[in-house]
Amino acid sequence: MPSSIDSGLIERHNAPLRETLDRDYATLGEKLDRRGVSIDAVTRQVAAFAVAVPSWGVGTGGTRFARFPGPGEPRGIFEKLDDCAVINDLGRATPAVSLHIPWDKADPADLKAKAEALGLAFDAMNSNTFQDHPDDPRQPLSYKFGSLSHTDAAVRRQAVEHNLETVAIGEAIGSKALTVWIGDGSNFAGQSDLGRAFERYLGAMKEITRGLPADWRIFSEHKMYEPAFYSTVVQDWGTSYLTAVELGDKAFCLVDLGHHAPNVNIEQIVSRLVRTGKLGGFHFNDSKYGDDDLDAGTIDPFRLFLVFNELVEAGVRLDALNPSYMIDQSHNVTDPIESLIRSANEIRRAYAQALLVDRAALHGHQENNDAMMASETLKAGFRLDVEPILAKARLEAGGAIDPIAAFRASGYRAKVAGERPAVKGSGGGIV
Amino acid sequence: MPSSIDSGLIERHNAPLRETLDRDYATLGEKLDRRGVSIDAVTRQVAAFAVAVPSWGVGTGGTRFARFPGPGEPRGIFEKLDDCAVINDLGRATPAVSLHIPWDKADPADLKAKAEALGLAFDAMNSNTFQDHPDDPRQPLSYKFGSLSHTDAAVRRQAVEHNLETVAIGEAIGSKALTVWIGDGSNFAGQSDLGRAFERYLGAMKEITRGLPADWRIFSEHKMYEPAFYSTVVQDWGTSYLTAVELGDKAFCLVDLGHHAPNVNIEQIVSRLVRTGKLGGFHFNDSKYGDDDLDAGTIDPFRLFLVFNELVEAGVRLDALNPSYMIDQSHNVTDPIESLIRSANEIRRAYAQALLVDRAALHGHQENNDAMMASETLKAGFRLDVEPILAKARLEAGGAIDPIAAFRASGYRAKVAGERPAVKGSGGGIV
Amino acid sequence: MPSSIDSGLIERHNAPLRETLDRDYATLGEKLDRRGVSIDAVTRQVAAFAVAVPSWGVGTGGTRFARFPGPGEPRGIFEKLDDCAVINDLGRATPAVSLHIPWDKADPADLKAKAEALGLAFDAMNSNTFQDHPDDPRQPLSYKFGSLSHTDAAVRRQAVEHNLETVAIGEAIGSKALTVWIGDGSNFAGQSDLGRAFERYLGAMKEITRGLPADWRIFSEHKMYEPAFYSTVVQDWGTSYLTAVELGDKAFCLVDLGHHAPNVNIEQIVSRLVRTGKLGGFHFNDSKYGDDDLDAGTIDPFRLFLVFNELVEAGVRLDALNPSYMIDQSHNVTDPIESLIRSANEIRRAYAQALLVDRAALHGHQENNDAMMASETLKAGFRLDVEPILAKARLEAGGAIDPIAAFRASGYRAKVAGERPAVKGSGGGIV
Amino acid sequence: MPSSIDSGLIERHNAPLRETLDRDYATLGEKLDRRGVSIDAVTRQVAAFAVAVPSWGVGTGGTRFARFPGPGEPRGIFEKLDDCAVINDLGRATPAVSLHIPWDKADPADLKAKAEALGLAFDAMNSNTFQDHPDDPRQPLSYKFGSLSHTDAAVRRQAVEHNLETVAIGEAIGSKALTVWIGDGSNFAGQSDLGRAFERYLGAMKEITRGLPADWRIFSEHKMYEPAFYSTVVQDWGTSYLTAVELGDKAFCLVDLGHHAPNVNIEQIVSRLVRTGKLGGFHFNDSKYGDDDLDAGTIDPFRLFLVFNELVEAGVRLDALNPSYMIDQSHNVTDPIESLIRSANEIRRAYAQALLVDRAALHGHQENNDAMMASETLKAGFRLDVEPILAKARLEAGGAIDPIAAFRASGYRAKVAGERPAVKGSGGGIV
Repeated sequence: MPSSIDSGLIERHNAPLRETLDRDYATLGEKLDRRGVSIDAVTRQVAAFAVAVPSWGVGTGGTRFARFPGPGEPRGIFEKLDDCAVINDLGRATPAVSLHIPWDKADPADLKAKAEALGLAFDAMNSNTFQDHPDDPRQPLSYKFGSLSHTDAAVRRQAVEHNLETVAIGEAIGSKALTVWIGDGSNFAGQSDLGRAFERYLGAMKEITRGLPADWRIFSEHKMYEPAFYSTVVQDWGTSYLTAVELGDKAFCLVDLGHHAPNVNIEQIVSRLVRTGKLGGFHFNDSKYGDDDLDAGTIDPFRLFLVFNELVEAGVRLDALNPSYMIDQSHNVTDPIESLIRSANEIRRAYAQALLVDRAALHGHQENNDAMMASETLKAGFRLDVEPILAKARLEAGGAIDPIAAFRASGYRAKVAGERPAVKGSGGGIV
Repeated sequence: MPSSIDSGLIERHNAPLRETLDRDYATLGEKLDRRGVSIDAVTRQVAAFAVAVPSWGVGTGGTRFARFPGPGEPRGIFEKLDDCAVINDLGRATPAVSLHIPWDKADPADLKAKAEALGLAFDAMNSNTFQDHPDDPRQPLSYKFGSLSHTDAAVRRQAVEHNLETVAIGEAIGSKALTVWIGDGSNFAGQSDLGRAFERYLGAMKEITRGLPADWRIFSEHKMYEPAFYSTVVQDWGTSYLTAVELGDKAFCLVDLGHHAPNVNIEQIVSRLVRTGKLGGFHFNDSKYGDDDLDAGTIDPFRLFLVFNELVEAGVRLDALNPSYMIDQSHNVTDPIESLIRSANEIRRAYAQALLVDRAALHGHQENNDAMMASETLKAGFRLDVEPILAKARLEAGGAIDPIAAFRASGYRAKVAGERPAVKGSGGGIV
Repeated sequence: MPSSIDSGLIERHNAPLRETLDRDYATLGEKLDRRGVSIDAVTRQVAAFAVAVPSWGVGTGGTRFARFPGPGEPRGIFEKLDDCAVINDLGRATPAVSLHIPWDKADPADLKAKAEALGLAFDAMNSNTFQDHPDDPRQPLSYKFGSLSHTDAAVRRQAVEHNLETVAIGEAIGSKALTVWIGDGSNFAGQSDLGRAFERYLGAMKEITRGLPADWRIFSEHKMYEPAFYSTVVQDWGTSYLTAVELGDKAFCLVDLGHHAPNVNIEQIVSRLVRTGKLGGFHFNDSKYGDDDLDAGTIDPFRLFLVFNELVEAGVRLDALNPSYMIDQSHNVTDPIESLIRSANEIRRAYAQALLVDRAALHGHQENNDAMMASETLKAGFRLDVEPILAKARLEAGGAIDPIAAFRASGYRAKVAGERPAVKGSGGGIV
Repeated sequence: MPSSIDSGLIERHNAPLRETLDRDYATLGEKLDRRGVSIDAVTRQVAAFAVAVPSWGVGTGGTRFARFPGPGEPRGIFEKLDDCAVINDLGRATPAVSLHIPWDKADPADLKAKAEALGLAFDAMNSNTFQDHPDDPRQPLSYKFGSLSHTDAAVRRQAVEHNLETVAIGEAIGSKALTVWIGDGSNFAGQSDLGRAFERYLGAMKEITRGLPADWRIFSEHKMYEPAFYSTVVQDWGTSYLTAVELGDKAFCLVDLGHHAPNVNIEQIVSRLVRTGKLGGFHFNDSKYGDDDLDAGTIDPFRLFLVFNELVEAGVRLDALNPSYMIDQSHNVTDPIESLIRSANEIRRAYAQALLVDRAALHGHQENNDAMMASETLKAGFRLDVEPILAKARLEAGGAIDPIAAFRASGYRAKVAGERPAVKGSGGGIV
């Protein structure tokens, strides 16, 4: 049997919860009916919304201070895929996995076979030039002082080659996009020439882009700081946009919700990128201070809703953009499987709430500068308790009404804890 | 005599200070000589650097809570020009004034004559669509809900016409640029459609741009927030850049140092805009929290230096860009004349320090990733006490060695306090 | 008739909405029942929760750039009380008004009579030493360089006397507390001696405290910045706490939600102040960037919920503290009456949601370090759509089911617009 | 000879630089003389100022993403002490080392002997309960969910015992203080009860304090966030102060310059803590975004100067407080020895500049509210290029005029690189 979650378990879990769900769903449906909205139509839209999970997300994350592993940590990509299958089996929102090379390097045929057996597909590929890979004979040079923007052409070449290798693996397993995030930057004013570093980055990115298969996209991901603490080469959406324009039609901007300066209006950046046609996708997570990589919707759920409000507002332009939705989180104190199930659900919650905004009324109030009614109309969507819709979407797709409870009931974690001995040594957490 | 500062006063002020200045200048010159730098060449470069003062800056500023006017506040543009002349006579760094319409509206011929008599010129013009102008028959509509991005085409038209009138006045007095800063935005999520507001803004800006004289430039000035507190239409350099690209060859981005999110690396934005060829100019000031509009170099002098480091680094590309350097500050607790004299001096200080960086050594260390020596080489410029260079540049141009002391000795403030009765009523401060 | 809202209007408004409310209330009640919670008990707790409105809040606010008044602005404290009565008649959550002296200065007997006729009481008094009051013969000295912390003892004395006069007015009208917020601080490093300024402030506050009636409290309100832009004398809760300790048993700390540094965890400050027994009260509002003074719950509703979670968690300690709940907002683009109705409702919403958290379960998960279930248990309260509870509480107290709709239907704004001619001149907005 | 830096090397390095230093020192002396200041007196004060280096600072730091070790990394505390000796031999500003237990655990007699041989002493001890120590039989329990504030009394007890063990080691080697920094907090709202966690922390800290030798102090170190990303138990100076008060006379607050919210006025916190008598010491470093742990004075040198301005202003109160000055940095891209030499020098630079402020003039301008002259008087100190004073202080103490150049000339790094094989494996960087 491909996945560890047997369908009988899910059925047994759902059975006693069905009646209450049906009642709550009916009640909410009646409420929406009054507003002229068909709940089933919304449920279908929600059910069609998928978000990819990151292979590295099923391991426990950490900080530069420490990493505290949990029991049953996956020891390699195949065990990670097992965990991802559990997430999708229960939550039915995450049918694709985003790989990270070289961490997940394996025979592509094996990867593909395993994923197919588990009912999973592969989303965007992620390269890694922010760590050294001393055991990889193809990466002998250090990225201590940069990768794609390094002053030394040989290091840039190595980083380009690594990205192309990542693309090649991705091509073999059915991925269609490469996400490039680099840690390049500087810790001290003067350490790096801000202009020349960007030119070098653009040059290297052009080489990668030239090496992409015809039907691939490349995502440039910006980040304000960390690991570089004075300047970062791709520091904000402005630089990410300049990059995407320079690289041409295959290049798009990826928005990670935790990579912005304090107080920044992220949903407005989404709106701007939609307009330019360069919105490539998202790395979802939540944060209060920096790139905290917390579970989506746990710090500022209204902000997540506002991002989805822009996406729903974008309408047909969004269909053309077809953004790549991914989670990128660091699970330091929770069971990673549970956090990913929850986060996918929160993302769908924000989407459902955005779908339920009375958009015609909203536009009318906006046109009339009725700030009060426009604001209230938008919040009316957010205030709705849409959990019945989310549960129904899961249920109808074969998932669990309460997926975290079902996961706990499954005994999966205890089982793999027995099978996967703890890795000795911890150190700072790479995420 | 055109200006209130008689040259005898300056000479009397300078006389007892000359010897010490000469000694300090010689000492610094000898020190620079050791590094192979000619102090006189640097002094000449500094002397050639001018920064415009804002006409509104010579009045006392305020906050939304209160404005506390000082004695002798100028009552109109002609008295403001008198004050600006004092600033330039003493500091010799600010030969041009930036006007704000409708505040400074007057017969262009009179403006020109007055300025010429005072030895002043006019820099970029500033329009004002963030306040209502109920006494102006050409501006009957309110900007409460926006101006160039308003949902009502009639308001947008009014705002466009106002900008074109501002250009017309500027053309008559020898200005060559229009700075457009709008307060448009929203206070509540949903109040405004983020995408449509930007489209309307672009449409209006295109009309203004079409109305520009052939040799004019238009500057788009971004600001993160205030007066709008949820979203601002031109919120960051990314949106400002999109605007400048859309508007074409005459359009450029203006960077106000106080209009960014917390922690943002402003000098990197300067570097990016230099690269795109869209850096239009600066509004200098300093800030710790928000758009505090404090005197340049008083909160973070190293940051100001780093901005000038990028400008010096830009080299010949900067000559092509020919940025417009302006001060934009709110003087709430100091004599505005003194604050503007000081700020111009601080700006020149940062420029002088940036000129004194051993750039060949810096580039070498950057190339070799010697973060320590690169950082120290840059800071070596900043650590230099270049006051003798600044004083010498003033002195040789006919200004005061210690311009604030000379101003205080001049009795100018007491004189105008007698001539200019205090305006009744204060209220919040418009700046 | 005391208030402009006739009870017939409210009944006519409620009639067609009652059935739906009853159904939604019953549905929610049944849902809560399943969790062992009695909806009526919660509704009673919510109904007992009152928050004071600020007299200045019924006028249109503004920024330093502009103020755009709306129609029918109240011209004095008696018209302001009329507006406050409308807010309370419709929303039934705001039975008390917080006055601001000297803005609201009037014969105390008249104030009391008017309030009684309108069914209103008076909450904490607010003094004003952040503006000059040139027409007040008792306040001839300027606060430009500070008030209670001014270097000049005569200015401090004047400020102390003003506070004592404010207390005297408050005593005559039944208030029991004085809120002291000062704008004292500095714009430049060095302008003010940070230590001596605080000593002077403490000295002046002690004089005020000595002058308090026996049953009064004094609230120290901190703020990070604005109007001072380099340092503020009472900059954070730490300094506010030092103040309250130094002043003794009558002194407490007031928390304004918009007066903190970016990213600060406000609910934790509430928790700390609860522990010290020095939590005095709140100024509710919401903000994204600085002290934006936006409507409560419009920017980050989850944060407001978390503040109330701490208050509910405080349990009996809160009864002892008996905090003063007030709104402090600036209504720049909405009808102030509508914003205050909405804000009071949002505050009650956060309270209701906090009451609905399964606290026993929460504590159990916390004790077991089950981060996932603890987090989900807390969010389960927030996710509930408690609008039926809020509406029911209003309805049973004689208010409107949809108070903003009822206000619009009342024609009140049009009526007062006809009675209250617009005040000429706007300028920056004092709020 | 105990240290690797032979005194001949330093003399050979200094010889060709002496003449220039003498000239620059004389010139600066003459300049200060004009202001009535004796340069030699300042040099003596600077020479008397020492700052401790952290033992962990001589290893390469890292981020959660990666650590890029440099050559010759010390493999244990004895090699770390060798490196610390080099720093002090060349810079003559860092005669004491701050140890971190269990990282630096060794026989106290050996530690003491080694330090004495190298001319070093031991400053405050640091405990570590933010990482697990699975190989330490006395620390079998995990700190994943906290240490001194853990819900489980057994974990708290273990953490207390570890702190007491750290004190015992410190006592044996002549230390007189314990710095307690914990990573305790939570990543999700609800995960931890904010109030109870603080109570548990206080309880545990009291036990540690009770175990302190009579002449010891304990420092409570606050931090806004990281490794906890929603709440931190000791999140700001307010909570640190509450802690120090609760613990009594031996407890003080330690200020790390990188542990504050964005935009916070750190020098004002120093001023407040001086007033309360609870300022215990500093962890110096610099930062732009978060706890970046960069070299002191490299991001905002003016801020560092303002901190020292408060210390100089504190006068005799500071003598009574006798703060502990330590560096706490993470050296990710520089040679750690060079960074520590530089940072100590920058700290002394700020001190020297603060000493050179004309304090009588400053106080006069403050008293008169002459914001301009007060601000300029303060900045006049900062603008001075005091490098000759710093170099002279080093030279006279037997150190190097240009200590980084001397270090490079010494060949020390190459030598130890040969002796200390690289440690296999890197991972995230613990700092």
